[in-house]
Amino acid sequence: MCRWLGYIGDPIRPEELLYQPERSLIEQSKSHAPDVAIANGDGYGLGWYGTADGPGLFRSASPAWGDHNLRELSAQIRSPLFLAHVRAATGTPVQQSNCHPFRYGHWMFVHNGMIDAFPRVRRDLLMQVDPELFPAVEGSTDSELMFYLALTFGLAEDPVGGLERMAGCIEAAGRRIGSDHPLQMTVGVTDGARLVAARYASDTEANTLHVSSSVRDLRLLYPENERFQHFSDEARVIVSEPLVDLPGMWREVPAGTALVVQDGEELEVPFVPRAA
Amino acid sequence: MCRWLGYIGDPIRPEELLYQPERSLIEQSKSHAPDVAIANGDGYGLGWYGTADGPGLFRSASPAWGDHNLRELSAQIRSPLFLAHVRAATGTPVQQSNCHPFRYGHWMFVHNGMIDAFPRVRRDLLMQVDPELFPAVEGSTDSELMFYLALTFGLAEDPVGGLERMAGCIEAAGRRIGSDHPLQMTVGVTDGARLVAARYASDTEANTLHVSSSVRDLRLLYPENERFQHFSDEARVIVSEPLVDLPGMWREVPAGTALVVQDGEELEVPFVPRAA
Amino acid sequence: MCRWLGYIGDPIRPEELLYQPERSLIEQSKSHAPDVAIANGDGYGLGWYGTADGPGLFRSASPAWGDHNLRELSAQIRSPLFLAHVRAATGTPVQQSNCHPFRYGHWMFVHNGMIDAFPRVRRDLLMQVDPELFPAVEGSTDSELMFYLALTFGLAEDPVGGLERMAGCIEAAGRRIGSDHPLQMTVGVTDGARLVAARYASDTEANTLHVSSSVRDLRLLYPENERFQHFSDEARVIVSEPLVDLPGMWREVPAGTALVVQDGEELEVPFVPRAA
Amino acid sequence: MCRWLGYIGDPIRPEELLYQPERSLIEQSKSHAPDVAIANGDGYGLGWYGTADGPGLFRSASPAWGDHNLRELSAQIRSPLFLAHVRAATGTPVQQSNCHPFRYGHWMFVHNGMIDAFPRVRRDLLMQVDPELFPAVEGSTDSELMFYLALTFGLAEDPVGGLERMAGCIEAAGRRIGSDHPLQMTVGVTDGARLVAARYASDTEANTLHVSSSVRDLRLLYPENERFQHFSDEARVIVSEPLVDLPGMWREVPAGTALVVQDGEELEVPFVPRAA
Repeated sequence: MCRWLGYIGDPIRPEELLYQPERSLIEQSKSHAPDVAIANGDGYGLGWYGTADGPGLFRSASPAWGDHNLRELSAQIRSPLFLAHVRAATGTPVQQSNCHPFRYGHWMFVHNGMIDAFPRVRRDLLMQVDPELFPAVEGSTDSELMFYLALTFGLAEDPVGGLERMAGCIEAAGRRIGSDHPLQMTVGVTDGARLVAARYASDTEANTLHVSSSVRDLRLLYPENERFQHFSDEARVIVSEPLVDLPGMWREVPAGTALVVQDGEELEVPFVPRAA
Repeated sequence: MCRWLGYIGDPIRPEELLYQPERSLIEQSKSHAPDVAIANGDGYGLGWYGTADGPGLFRSASPAWGDHNLRELSAQIRSPLFLAHVRAATGTPVQQSNCHPFRYGHWMFVHNGMIDAFPRVRRDLLMQVDPELFPAVEGSTDSELMFYLALTFGLAEDPVGGLERMAGCIEAAGRRIGSDHPLQMTVGVTDGARLVAARYASDTEANTLHVSSSVRDLRLLYPENERFQHFSDEARVIVSEPLVDLPGMWREVPAGTALVVQDGEELEVPFVPRAA
Repeated sequence: MCRWLGYIGDPIRPEELLYQPERSLIEQSKSHAPDVAIANGDGYGLGWYGTADGPGLFRSASPAWGDHNLRELSAQIRSPLFLAHVRAATGTPVQQSNCHPFRYGHWMFVHNGMIDAFPRVRRDLLMQVDPELFPAVEGSTDSELMFYLALTFGLAEDPVGGLERMAGCIEAAGRRIGSDHPLQMTVGVTDGARLVAARYASDTEANTLHVSSSVRDLRLLYPENERFQHFSDEARVIVSEPLVDLPGMWREVPAGTALVVQDGEELEVPFVPRAA
Repeated sequence: MCRWLGYIGDPIRPEELLYQPERSLIEQSKSHAPDVAIANGDGYGLGWYGTADGPGLFRSASPAWGDHNLRELSAQIRSPLFLAHVRAATGTPVQQSNCHPFRYGHWMFVHNGMIDAFPRVRRDLLMQVDPELFPAVEGSTDSELMFYLALTFGLAEDPVGGLERMAGCIEAAGRRIGSDHPLQMTVGVTDGARLVAARYASDTEANTLHVSSSVRDLRLLYPENERFQHFSDEARVIVSEPLVDLPGMWREVPAGTALVVQDGEELEVPFVPRAA
């Protein structure tokens, strides 16, 4: 089970979310999930939009908790939109090309979850990736494949629709081999302008996903908390698990929904897998 | 908190202890200790005596649980005496030169524990290493330094005495800077003929250490257990934590004692730090 | 341009070929080829048959020249048949899963060369891998794909034929996209009983491949050379480039031929790509 | 033999020097020096001053030529002062803590060269490091030790003087063990405001060091060259070896001299080792 977070708002230093909170992403990665006794030590990644044309990508197969370079980078760069991920591998090799985020053009993608019986459906799914996109598939994870399927099914024009068609395609492939829970996912995807997230599982038990409350509301709730003074009104954080335990700070994203955050607006829509 | 194990007996494949038991060393490394929520993901090492002159050493800074090479090596080699270790770093860099076992000539050494306030006593202790041995100090850990202090104080001629003088030296240095619990250690050390272990802490709370019962006794206790048929009578395993939960299989090494296992004989003696 | 070697004969320690000769494989990897100014610093691998069931495999993405573990392993193990490889990547990521040898069951495979315009033919070729074998494809190299195509085309029953059909398949795919030099290869492949090598290029300029002369002949040529006393009569070394500069020691394998070495016998046959 | 470069001027993206020139630092690292057949594949580092308090540091033990993260970072960040280094190890382990630049507070340091017979003088020199600074010594290289000796001898107050006393200290230690060429160095050191370089060798053969000519002069010499339009008047690059082959672009720093570049001013002074 991986963990990830996405931030959108005025530029901040990623360390403010990766390292500083009580339950920062790095802190979470050190220890087991409440019900799974493993650490997220199989690599990490940070993708951020900055001053260059296109996002920067920093990934490593080393455990995030001990990595000096990640700490340095997180403290030095400032970004208005970034995705960070810590990995717990589910069968595919631990290597940089299998770390999230995955990037294609201006798009980046992170995932927590898995495709059931992946070795048995991988060939089928790989063949459904647009041949024009196929050369860009670099690693061997189910996550990366989901990204390229979504791109194949129009992610760039219609992010939620592209993700829904990707989910439908995977569930169809899973049914063909007899799986009754083909897909488990929370995903984060962005093009540098909007941050999109979705939470879905073929069965009812979906991995968690949370979004931060409006900063204006948080300033009213916690007037003494300096951090909330510092963040911009439109800032939003989407996370697998809350970074701090403050009542009213986090709202759970319901299973079977997608979120689109852009220019301070937050839109929640149903997420329903559909035929490709 | 690190974990380690040592084996002495007829040649076996290390995988029998590193991977196969229910609570194998690798399995232990994936999750937290009963009371410490971290994994041992900061590197590992395997040192083994085989057919060559002098032991072989295989160390890596990667988490042991995902490392293919360790699994391969463990399955291919056969050794009558080996030490294995998984690391949780206590402040010094995660790098191969800081992984245990450490080796000098025919000697190898592993350690679980720490030197209190190490940055403040490191210089003092480094200077007490025999200048002839000093060039061999390769890394920056307290553990490696303990090894070279023990070598300085006659480990090669009198292993337990050398370790006791090392402990005394460290406690003296700790007292000089005002520490009241300078040293916490279980150590394993070997020259390829005998396996020596010691368990000691300046205060009362020492990290755990266990030794396996006589294989003859285990065959009587568990006549249906194939594994005990397979091991030789003289085989002994010394571990931080038991590899399986079988009543009567493990005996705790008392704090303040050392064990010397050689040629099927097991000798337990007091371990008392002494002046160098 | 990668480099590789294969050994078959009485058991020896791999270090005798990887480290000891004047132009050992490791020594070759440090510097550029006579006409290409790059080192082989993109990973290495050693696959060896020993006492276990099936070969052991040790691969790392680090440069071979500085790797302590490879040196240790090479000095400790003894093997009657092994393949070693140092990599210079040709576009695909530097990661353990892209290092040679590749292994499937009892078979191992190394390659020097490349598939022309690989990103453009990769999908086509991947689809021709037997769906039963497909889940075993772990990395993203042209080399690994060649191995699985050869397995698909009967490598296990007829090694040279399987390799010829693989070459034919690749050349056909290359022609489909307009390449006029689709394939460049020297390959080494083994099942633990025989060592097979082939040298072929679609155009005339094939990477080099050499085989050692009979040890009996070498003992006559160089009666004072201790090393030749040490090797068994049937010992053979197949290498990209000679390990030492001794007249009469190496015979170049002609382009368009394959070698099969087994039980002291050496068979040279034409290598002609054929339809799959 | 390592290679390094330092830049000072208006903010630029490091990729403009690390990757873009014909003989960029990364390009140089791939192949051997004119007279030494090794690559700089034993790690690299980039230290840069940016928007945060204190410099950022990014180091890795992997070969620079294949590292995606370095490429990404070099393209995303903008910095008015940075040091970059590619390493060819001279005996100490290849690990992140042994990569340059080394950092202490606001200071950073890179080195090309070596301390002769380092294992024999290391203890002596380590003991001369100020005990207050000693805990900051993280690795095992001669280079890092030179940095901490220079800091001990007043680098922060008088950079050139501190370096000269460091050189004098090392030469004295070398003479004590009978070395007749104790020190070989080009060094780059900075505090974020000025860039200091020095070129010195105990014997006459010093590693090369070059500084770029005034940008104003380059614009006159090469009016059609877009790159020179882009750099600010005060920009300076100090390099081990020229990044491009343009007559008039580089001036060799004479052996036995130091350069101090700050606020567009360039000061050249003698560099003479002196007693500490």
